[in-house]
Amino acid sequence: MFNIAKVLADIEADSDQNIDLLADLLKIKSISTIPDYADECYQAAGWLKAFLDSFGMDAIIYESEGHPIVFSNYQTSRPEAKTILFYGHYDVQPVDPVSLWDSDPFDPVLSSIDNEPCIIARGASDDKGQLLTFLIALKYIKDEAGELPFSLKIILEGEEECGSKTLPIFLEDYKDKLSADIAYVCDTGMWDKDTPAITRSLRGLLSEEFKIIGPDRDLHSGEFGGVAWNPIRIITKILSDVYDDEGKVTIPNFYDGVNEVNENIINSWKKLTFNEAEYLNKIGQKSSSGETGRSIFEKTWSRPTFEINGIFGGYTDEGTKTVIPSEANAKITCRLVGNQDPEKILENIHKYIKSSLPDGVQVIFDGADHCRAIEFDTDSYYFQSASEAIEEEWGVSPVFTGGGGSIPVVEAFKTLLNMDTVLIGFALDDDRIHSPNEKYNISSYVKGIKTWARVIAKYQ
Amino acid sequence: MFNIAKVLADIEADSDQNIDLLADLLKIKSISTIPDYADECYQAAGWLKAFLDSFGMDAIIYESEGHPIVFSNYQTSRPEAKTILFYGHYDVQPVDPVSLWDSDPFDPVLSSIDNEPCIIARGASDDKGQLLTFLIALKYIKDEAGELPFSLKIILEGEEECGSKTLPIFLEDYKDKLSADIAYVCDTGMWDKDTPAITRSLRGLLSEEFKIIGPDRDLHSGEFGGVAWNPIRIITKILSDVYDDEGKVTIPNFYDGVNEVNENIINSWKKLTFNEAEYLNKIGQKSSSGETGRSIFEKTWSRPTFEINGIFGGYTDEGTKTVIPSEANAKITCRLVGNQDPEKILENIHKYIKSSLPDGVQVIFDGADHCRAIEFDTDSYYFQSASEAIEEEWGVSPVFTGGGGSIPVVEAFKTLLNMDTVLIGFALDDDRIHSPNEKYNISSYVKGIKTWARVIAKYQ
Repeated sequence: MFNIAKVLADIEADSDQNIDLLADLLKIKSISTIPDYADECYQAAGWLKAFLDSFGMDAIIYESEGHPIVFSNYQTSRPEAKTILFYGHYDVQPVDPVSLWDSDPFDPVLSSIDNEPCIIARGASDDKGQLLTFLIALKYIKDEAGELPFSLKIILEGEEECGSKTLPIFLEDYKDKLSADIAYVCDTGMWDKDTPAITRSLRGLLSEEFKIIGPDRDLHSGEFGGVAWNPIRIITKILSDVYDDEGKVTIPNFYDGVNEVNENIINSWKKLTFNEAEYLNKIGQKSSSGETGRSIFEKTWSRPTFEINGIFGGYTDEGTKTVIPSEANAKITCRLVGNQDPEKILENIHKYIKSSLPDGVQVIFDGADHCRAIEFDTDSYYFQSASEAIEEEWGVSPVFTGGGGSIPVVEAFKTLLNMDTVLIGFALDDDRIHSPNEKYNISSYVKGIKTWARVIAKYQ
Repeated sequence: MFNIAKVLADIEADSDQNIDLLADLLKIKSISTIPDYADECYQAAGWLKAFLDSFGMDAIIYESEGHPIVFSNYQTSRPEAKTILFYGHYDVQPVDPVSLWDSDPFDPVLSSIDNEPCIIARGASDDKGQLLTFLIALKYIKDEAGELPFSLKIILEGEEECGSKTLPIFLEDYKDKLSADIAYVCDTGMWDKDTPAITRSLRGLLSEEFKIIGPDRDLHSGEFGGVAWNPIRIITKILSDVYDDEGKVTIPNFYDGVNEVNENIINSWKKLTFNEAEYLNKIGQKSSSGETGRSIFEKTWSRPTFEINGIFGGYTDEGTKTVIPSEANAKITCRLVGNQDPEKILENIHKYIKSSLPDGVQVIFDGADHCRAIEFDTDSYYFQSASEAIEEEWGVSPVFTGGGGSIPVVEAFKTLLNMDTVLIGFALDDDRIHSPNEKYNISSYVKGIKTWARVIAKYQ
């Protein structure tokens, strides 16, 4: 048992010291995509190990072909204590274009934007500031209580921004050391600066690429126009017929496994401050695509999509060429939700395309890959206790948002370790992650640390 | 009056000498697209001027920014004689890939393919061999008769294979010296080696390029998939809806000005030896696109088309990128027939595309260009007399074929000089024009010269 009030007061009192700690980590240029920064990635891993060791977490550095993973396997002495897994990443995106930064991306600056104090540096929000909120909370509780109320596995990787090549090798190697009751990840955002959020679902992803082959070579459109099957015409027809007039995907059985979101969740979304016109205006749009009769939240958080990410065929340089090309290509991805089965959907996409081809026209598929959607049971103990802790700190209960994107590590935890993940984060839409002048609000940071302390305190 | 029988006999007797003449011209590397060969183009022009001058045609060399044009303005003394214009081009295509040639492309070789004697060299068929058939016929008649039975303007250009930049300047400069009753061009083909042909129509061409702009920047398909208008989806829908299920173009009023071909012409096409499956097999196809219920001849010679020549948008490099792109682009061309008005069609295409856009999605058009279709009155004196002359030489009357492509100079003669063109040529499908081992059959050449002599004799 420890005194959470004292822990929270200490965290508040030590704000400057903890900001210095973040600034220190932000100075390390751990850009994972650029080989020249490999040493800095190693240095960041070393920094994190030293920090964890400073309060007795006995971290190790796991090395493989890529950047190292920092791992800690802490055992509490408390009987029947839960086991927690925490995941974060210390690597950051490249800083280009550096000319658009108002200060050196790796020389953190304390500033104030719209009267909100913040720290500006690459990685401030994504994910150094965020992962430290959890680690610092641990330190205060360990210092106060002598030990943590749970056993804990910590995984801090250095390749999240460049494809996480090492992580699957690590997960395989350490599989029997990783089992836990629940995972926490601090790499998501709040709804707005006053409204905290827990991400309750992530869409899955299915990617495919295909090539339509018409004539066996490029043809002159004068000689053969009107007779030769133009593969661009065929591919545009195939892709266009994927959607009906209501914006629904027409691929047979595409919606198998898609569930309607339960009413409580829908109601919590209805309470969110949200201006559709402003939202669309931010991306230069006046209207919204997708299924008729669905809200923006439903469309991006709970409905699957079929998206064309790239198309190319024929003559694409300057001017005109009267060619009927031999080939046309498209790259597509589907976002998946609920229990949609990527393999069945892929099979149905293949069938649909093949059945759309005129006699003698060919298709070649290439590059399919997929991960399933994830949806968590927000009624579970872990979600409910986190929700309470968050409400205590922020004065409002968190909204259970959906995540439109996919976080492969979270799917790996589910698939490999059969473990749910509570996605709590304190980033804001205007944190400019991946962009110049990335920042993290001081309130996100300090209240973030306090929030995690409250979440951890629930395990007492 | 001259003795056509003697002329024909002389031409036959002098075959070897005339083949040497062609071989001599073929040695000149007049590749117009490659600046290094500019001197050789000039040399070819000089060769032709010298040849024309050798039988009193007083040619001049017209120089402007590009390769020179050889021009002759011959006046006959015969009262009320017709005036004829002849057009040809002395420039040739590049020879790449040179490794696929069995001999030096500019060192003509006499050979035999399928028991047909031929001459192999770049330009043998396109268009040095063809233009010489006319010029040599002139020489024999002038030598025999002392003068030609008509006044004659000869235009031999050197930029047909590279965009004819100089020709419009020349046509404008020499406009008042160019009026004639009829033009002849020898740059087309026979139906097959036993069936001569006159091209009775050429399709027009309308080209346009457009860009669909959805969101104001590329977006993450996780965050915005299902809400953002994907411009690739919009462009595929627009392009796909251009065709109905019967292969007809749906753009309003697209077929205004398209006439059904008269029954005599259709009947002459029905008599042609033609195997549809073989034809399709040659381009790697098993079925034919275009309008249901129309023959291949109708589709390529007498019906308009809407063709997509290029498309591009989004991510097109290797692998997957989960992007919703801001833009998608397409390049289209229409082949036009009859009295279709390119400007009205362009206006209707613009209207159709604009009306297909969701609210807030933009289109930018760029690069429209067009020339009208041309169709000649094959009942006119010039077509009938040419037809008779051809039948006398070949033993069969020529078929009046359509040309699927467009020959801009022929449209310029029609538009600028209000003059029809009789398109007679002796090339064969297997002459490999623009490709390695281009050839011209000796029979095409010798009988070609004799054919023109017979055509000219009709003016006596």
